[in-house]
Amino acid sequence: MAPHGEGSEEAMVVQDENRKPISSILIVIAMQTEAMPVVNKFQLKEDLDPVFPKGVPWVRYHGIYKDLHINLVWPGKDLTLGVDSVGTISASLVTYAAIQALQPDLIINAGTAGGFKVKGACISDVFLVSDVAFHDRRIPIPVFDLYGVGSRQSFSTPNLLKELNLKAGKLSTGDSLDMSPQDEASIVANEATVKDMEGAAVAYVADLLKVPAIFIKAVTDIVDGDKPTAEEFLQNLSAVTAALEQAVAQIVDFISGKCLSEL
Amino acid sequence: MAPHGEGSEEAMVVQDENRKPISSILIVIAMQTEAMPVVNKFQLKEDLDPVFPKGVPWVRYHGIYKDLHINLVWPGKDLTLGVDSVGTISASLVTYAAIQALQPDLIINAGTAGGFKVKGACISDVFLVSDVAFHDRRIPIPVFDLYGVGSRQSFSTPNLLKELNLKAGKLSTGDSLDMSPQDEASIVANEATVKDMEGAAVAYVADLLKVPAIFIKAVTDIVDGDKPTAEEFLQNLSAVTAALEQAVAQIVDFISGKCLSEL
Repeated sequence: MAPHGEGSEEAMVVQDENRKPISSILIVIAMQTEAMPVVNKFQLKEDLDPVFPKGVPWVRYHGIYKDLHINLVWPGKDLTLGVDSVGTISASLVTYAAIQALQPDLIINAGTAGGFKVKGACISDVFLVSDVAFHDRRIPIPVFDLYGVGSRQSFSTPNLLKELNLKAGKLSTGDSLDMSPQDEASIVANEATVKDMEGAAVAYVADLLKVPAIFIKAVTDIVDGDKPTAEEFLQNLSAVTAALEQAVAQIVDFISGKCLSEL
Repeated sequence: MAPHGEGSEEAMVVQDENRKPISSILIVIAMQTEAMPVVNKFQLKEDLDPVFPKGVPWVRYHGIYKDLHINLVWPGKDLTLGVDSVGTISASLVTYAAIQALQPDLIINAGTAGGFKVKGACISDVFLVSDVAFHDRRIPIPVFDLYGVGSRQSFSTPNLLKELNLKAGKLSTGDSLDMSPQDEASIVANEATVKDMEGAAVAYVADLLKVPAIFIKAVTDIVDGDKPTAEEFLQNLSAVTAALEQAVAQIVDFISGKCLSEL
């Protein structure tokens, strides 16, 4: 059905936006180890005139590649503990603040993830995510239950998927690196192939502020394998970030010169 | 040890801030049912010139009571599902955006919570929270584990606690209304008397932006009792919000005319 009334003007604006070449992309990455290969690949420079409030640890790198303004943000190191500020809250906040400050045309959330071999994931596989949801927000009250799961589709990029020969799969997000039986049941219900700690939160904020978002996840550990997650994750982190960097570079190359509707 | 060098100037500024009467408070509440009694009590008006970005569901009420500018924010209804935007992500975002826009002197996060009878909680008890932590962010890697727990002390208000005869207790926060065995183990480790879905997230943002925060939690359900949580929560929600409103009103009255160091 064609949009009508007030909707049609808005729809036309959206359509026009989709037909303009993409000029600004925001890459959201949770960990420094994941971010630096991408920063180096595109020779991005750290922000000297911060767009974020004084005192927050969030870091922005930026630069120009071909016709694209690239901003890369990561939530930085926890101010007290010195570890990367992983998880949904930091990712939400830095995504929100970056969208407000930078008004990107497209968000790319790139990062590492656990993969399920039963769903076809192998170490170093790079997935282009079709759907995201949460697996650790159980609210057993009607409708609140759906809000908790927070299922969302990624921005659809069929040409990108085909051209770069990436694997496609669903992503489930939670704030724990391990997986409890309750998490597992939700992940199965979410039909997830990969599991991370930020994706659905970035999707929530992107949706709230109406910015299209895609999700690139590289597998560091096999959740349904026989190795302990934390050990396998740390062992593979460096190597897998190379695969991630390569995929992000290919994606950025593919995006260059295109409009949203061509992805 | 006395601060010295650059620290001393900063310490003096903080000290001066602590000696100025509090002029602006930000009340962060997750649910409309919890918020409206407070809105009505102080005859707060809904914002007509929104300080938040276009499109977000976040709602601000504001008004003046005695010498205090009161802002009350709640994250509003989910744009797709129509339920209150509960949980840590929405609470973080609206707290962040409200601090940026309103620069409050003090944050009061008020809301309902589950209570543990083994720690002395009863239905309708109102707790002034001494410490907050998360119970659903398990990251079993050294130091990341502490980051996940995210334990923080509330701003210390010994006079307020004594004067209003509130119960004191620790709060544990997670994004589920129910409690898995893993959550329970973390809640026990956090020594929590009350369990909510926002507190530690509000504390994280307040800490990030250096705004003192206190937490008032009224007990709607007994987690270690024999009634199902969701049922007991919904049954008691309205009645308990009256106790919450009364406590918030007493606290605001107590704050009026005082500086932070007198609380």
